[in-house]
Amino acid sequence: MRIFNTSKLIIMVRLFLICFGILLSVPSFSQDRTFDLMPVPSVIKPTKDRCGITKSFTIGVTGNPGNRVYAEATRALRRLDNRMGFFFKQGNITMKDHDAGANLLIEVKRPAELRLYEDESYQLYSGTKQVKIVANTDLGAIRGLETLHQLLSVDADGYYFPGVEINDAPRFPWRGLLLDITLHWMPMDVVKRTLDCMAAVKMNVLHLHLTEDQMFGIESKVYPRLHEVGAEGNYYTQEDIKEVIAYADQRGIRVVPEFDVPGHCTSWLKAYPELASVKRDYELQRYYGVFDPSLDVTKEFTYEFLDKLFTEMSALFPDEYFHIGGDENTGKDWDLNPDIKAYMKKKGMTTYRELETEFIQRLLPILKKNGKKMMGWDEILRPGVPHDIMIQSWRGTESLVEAAKNGYTGLLSTGYYIDLIQPTDFHYLVDPIPSNTVLTAGQQKFIVGGEATMWTEHVTPETVDSRIWPRTAAIAERLWSPSSVTNVEDMYRRLDQASLWLEGLGSTHLKNKGMLMRRLANSYDTKALEVLVDVIEPLKIYERNAGDTMYTVFSPYTKIADVATPDQKVAREFRKNVSIYCSTKDKQLEKEIINQLQMWKANHTGFLELIKRSPVLTEAEGLSENLEKIAIIGIRAIDYINKLCLVPAGWKKESLGITQTAKEQGGRCDLQVVTAIEELVSAADK
Amino acid sequence: MRIFNTSKLIIMVRLFLICFGILLSVPSFSQDRTFDLMPVPSVIKPTKDRCGITKSFTIGVTGNPGNRVYAEATRALRRLDNRMGFFFKQGNITMKDHDAGANLLIEVKRPAELRLYEDESYQLYSGTKQVKIVANTDLGAIRGLETLHQLLSVDADGYYFPGVEINDAPRFPWRGLLLDITLHWMPMDVVKRTLDCMAAVKMNVLHLHLTEDQMFGIESKVYPRLHEVGAEGNYYTQEDIKEVIAYADQRGIRVVPEFDVPGHCTSWLKAYPELASVKRDYELQRYYGVFDPSLDVTKEFTYEFLDKLFTEMSALFPDEYFHIGGDENTGKDWDLNPDIKAYMKKKGMTTYRELETEFIQRLLPILKKNGKKMMGWDEILRPGVPHDIMIQSWRGTESLVEAAKNGYTGLLSTGYYIDLIQPTDFHYLVDPIPSNTVLTAGQQKFIVGGEATMWTEHVTPETVDSRIWPRTAAIAERLWSPSSVTNVEDMYRRLDQASLWLEGLGSTHLKNKGMLMRRLANSYDTKALEVLVDVIEPLKIYERNAGDTMYTVFSPYTKIADVATPDQKVAREFRKNVSIYCSTKDKQLEKEIINQLQMWKANHTGFLELIKRSPVLTEAEGLSENLEKIAIIGIRAIDYINKLCLVPAGWKKESLGITQTAKEQGGRCDLQVVTAIEELVSAADK
Repeated sequence: MRIFNTSKLIIMVRLFLICFGILLSVPSFSQDRTFDLMPVPSVIKPTKDRCGITKSFTIGVTGNPGNRVYAEATRALRRLDNRMGFFFKQGNITMKDHDAGANLLIEVKRPAELRLYEDESYQLYSGTKQVKIVANTDLGAIRGLETLHQLLSVDADGYYFPGVEINDAPRFPWRGLLLDITLHWMPMDVVKRTLDCMAAVKMNVLHLHLTEDQMFGIESKVYPRLHEVGAEGNYYTQEDIKEVIAYADQRGIRVVPEFDVPGHCTSWLKAYPELASVKRDYELQRYYGVFDPSLDVTKEFTYEFLDKLFTEMSALFPDEYFHIGGDENTGKDWDLNPDIKAYMKKKGMTTYRELETEFIQRLLPILKKNGKKMMGWDEILRPGVPHDIMIQSWRGTESLVEAAKNGYTGLLSTGYYIDLIQPTDFHYLVDPIPSNTVLTAGQQKFIVGGEATMWTEHVTPETVDSRIWPRTAAIAERLWSPSSVTNVEDMYRRLDQASLWLEGLGSTHLKNKGMLMRRLANSYDTKALEVLVDVIEPLKIYERNAGDTMYTVFSPYTKIADVATPDQKVAREFRKNVSIYCSTKDKQLEKEIINQLQMWKANHTGFLELIKRSPVLTEAEGLSENLEKIAIIGIRAIDYINKLCLVPAGWKKESLGITQTAKEQGGRCDLQVVTAIEELVSAADK
Repeated sequence: MRIFNTSKLIIMVRLFLICFGILLSVPSFSQDRTFDLMPVPSVIKPTKDRCGITKSFTIGVTGNPGNRVYAEATRALRRLDNRMGFFFKQGNITMKDHDAGANLLIEVKRPAELRLYEDESYQLYSGTKQVKIVANTDLGAIRGLETLHQLLSVDADGYYFPGVEINDAPRFPWRGLLLDITLHWMPMDVVKRTLDCMAAVKMNVLHLHLTEDQMFGIESKVYPRLHEVGAEGNYYTQEDIKEVIAYADQRGIRVVPEFDVPGHCTSWLKAYPELASVKRDYELQRYYGVFDPSLDVTKEFTYEFLDKLFTEMSALFPDEYFHIGGDENTGKDWDLNPDIKAYMKKKGMTTYRELETEFIQRLLPILKKNGKKMMGWDEILRPGVPHDIMIQSWRGTESLVEAAKNGYTGLLSTGYYIDLIQPTDFHYLVDPIPSNTVLTAGQQKFIVGGEATMWTEHVTPETVDSRIWPRTAAIAERLWSPSSVTNVEDMYRRLDQASLWLEGLGSTHLKNKGMLMRRLANSYDTKALEVLVDVIEPLKIYERNAGDTMYTVFSPYTKIADVATPDQKVAREFRKNVSIYCSTKDKQLEKEIINQLQMWKANHTGFLELIKRSPVLTEAEGLSENLEKIAIIGIRAIDYINKLCLVPAGWKKESLGITQTAKEQGGRCDLQVVTAIEELVSAADK
């Protein structure tokens, strides 16, 4: 469910403000020692043991494990060695490696079936001589291995695992990430590194959004024009999909495909115009938004087509859920077709929602005979649909609550739209089952988890990781850890570490920043750009693509708004420091704040030099200049706070005029430190 | 042709020293203005025009072009827009875009056949209103587009193409890169970004080394055990190969496969033991080196097998050349097999070279009936082989000269072994046809170019780019530009720019350095590590893997030797500056040198702190300490040079003792600034 138009924007902003309110009211308390783990385990008990690691380190596997465990244990061994550099002697771990005295012993009762509600629990005991991971299923063992990677520690004697007893299991069984590969094409390497990082934070569903107005991103052998005509060369072959599924399976991650019908399907109609509600020369959509083209759901041909296509795709994707989208069908093209109107009249339908209901109901047996359960956005919850469907909610917890009360399973995506550039703590505090839920314990079971959504209209393979990571790790924690784990400060502390090890696993969210800046500045020296980028963020929610008309699929995504990332740490910490300083007047903090302000004040000259090398940066000249201006105000404010001189009449008003201007966008970004400067101004002139 | 053992090491070292001698004697002269182009075009004439670029920029294509030009013109438009951020309105460029008044007009006479000797010439005219690329073939147009990207300039009025008239064609028709995907697996994204960068420096052959003792890296449908048993999951499917070939074809790059026989084939024998000369329990080789397993070339089964396999692969790879390796067969396994010895005796063969000759001769008709010409390492040049084979030489220009005198075509790889961590200028000054060649003009035509070789035992997908780029750009220039283009200083100046735009195209050689350091230091703060890494290089030629026993396919390649890169700029420039300073005593240079030395002197403390966080760095503690020590010597030497105090007796000897020790390796790296310190010491105490 993409949310483009303005009325929906209001929902998002409202939710943002509500959650922001919650955030401010959350008491700051300290968790038990969390060892920098993310997600935090259910129960973790530190002991005084220390399990040192030497070059003779080995892994053993016992019980009745499946192939997954051997492959993941081998990968774990290499990952550990890559960090410690010991040249471990053990090669690929196989059934021969069942030494119960191995330094790491993995005990598994049975191979898992990769499906919803499968057991993912594990226990991890780290003693003086051995670490033991005990799990009912290989999935549990895999989750335990990820915890182990995060436990690796260092002291004066070298590498070790700290003594702990962990008893862990997820709070929700569905912890997903939607990756849209249609608004910008995402090649296989993006998918694979995303899966590696998802596994590291114990997520277990990759939802691939495969078809859109802009492209049909997967090979169909029964209707090959879908990818041949609908994809301009960028699509996953069926071999690719098998590779993705195998890669995900090894990491204990399910893959759920989405084929979005009856709207969002211009690419289908270009390939097979006979599916269309309106005769038209269909071209792939180049803009982003909600469009009118729609399947003609009154034609038998459409159902034959979907039957064959869904049967083909059902065989390809082993998961029991099959996502049919169902969202944002405008109905306008149905209105334009007299045959459809006649059909509706004949059937006594007065709104196109009724026709949609019939459409959904006709898809159900097609999926059922293929052994699939239907999944879709809120819109699929229609009168008479069976109770085994899965609702993905973009409308918020209320719609999930309604569904659960009626015995429908659902998962939350509202609040987890990571493409909207909102801060991590906002997402972190969105709970699929808030503490004040009206649902009974029995009803709560119908809410199975959540999914972060990575819509890709404003990202490319170069920038997508910086939108997913590290923020999604916090969402993963929300879905795995006990609901009581809500300390934002502790989350940010651990997220900082997670960001490092997610990079180590292949995410490009940190390293591409340097590349993007060098390319944008056309220089090895990017200092002035970096100082600015550290305090700006791309415009949030749906503001960046004003009127849905600024960007197309051909637009450059290599500019300052693409280098800028969500939830900038420098800006966030500056705001926090200023808040503390305004109440404490702490001198050490004051010094840090002044240093920061002096740096911003001095930066504009260097930025103007960069513009000479790279005029594409001109669009951010205003931001840079405003940063200089508000830095000057901030420095002055601190002088006034220290009563070095009297606050002149009109200074506050003038200053707030300047900060107001400094809130304007530049290069589709805005400064993230303006409110902190305003706070200083207020503190200076009470 | 990998070169593992010590006798071969001597050849390499000798060549290195010879070329280093050449390097020192090359006069430093200034080229004509080269506009930072790399490779330098044959003829370039600057004019006074300036072709400004605005957001209405368009591309038109006329003549009789093929699909390649439309695809590449579209890619060029997006690449230009990605740099300038104009949001160009033109979408995909198609036959409809034939406006002769377009800002960039591409005129092509005919689509090329992608084969050796095809016309790659082009002319590029940049006037006030239009840039025109005129070429006989689409290949020429594609080469011209790459030149255009490099011409993009900036002045006070914004982006523009400078006025030029370029008339360009390659010196050699074979400008290749061998990418070994067997010693470490290289996934598709590595191959694709390598192709993007190769195209940018006008290289035209990707040589894929697909099979080895360690793995069989490509799917075979006729002998599926080859990849099923011989690859542990890492191999290109035939669909992948088609994708690579199409990707390369669009960029005007040929793809030549290598199936290395009769040696280097342990993976084949694990899959099909009946091919082996010796009955043995074959396992995939985990070490790197030269091993004895070999095909039994006296069995008919072997030829039936190779016939079917090569026929299958010939259909998959469209190129006319098919590389059969032929190198480093030790003959020892043949000696162990009485049947083979009996066969040889019967045929009157006294050495296994004769048996190899028969083997080569029996492969020729197999390739011929599949429309292929044989390519192989020096070893395939045997009595009686036909003249249409292609020799790839690792033995040096002498063997190519001998071949050419006898009418055999060949290309040079000696001197282009980029895996050996030698400096760019060494490779740059190796010429397939040196100026003192004894060959006649007619004979010279048999030398068709060269190939850089990227053997991957010591690299992973994370580090491979830093071994290929930017150095290979200089080899590409050697093979494309006139032989007179040999100014090393100008090459390094342009290489620095090339490094930036190669990164912009996707190479990870710059950005992965930051990632590797953060992971290695387990910290965002990598300053002390970076200072050290900037002055060390991995051990060169074959020294890193001492005795071929230190490393296996399971070894960690995440350590300091993997972060370190060849031809470190900071070290190189320091050495240069010291040389100039010692003869000029220039005060500004002295200040820079002292600053640098002070930084090194102070760095060790920070490095020791990093070791505490990350004990894997301990192996480089000696390097860091030595850097401190020699920095102190250098500072002292400058004091003496300035006669601030008298040189104490014994100081020189003592200092040179310390510098001698500082030449020792640490973490399989060595310091690159020791000779410069020695130069300072000598200058201080003449």
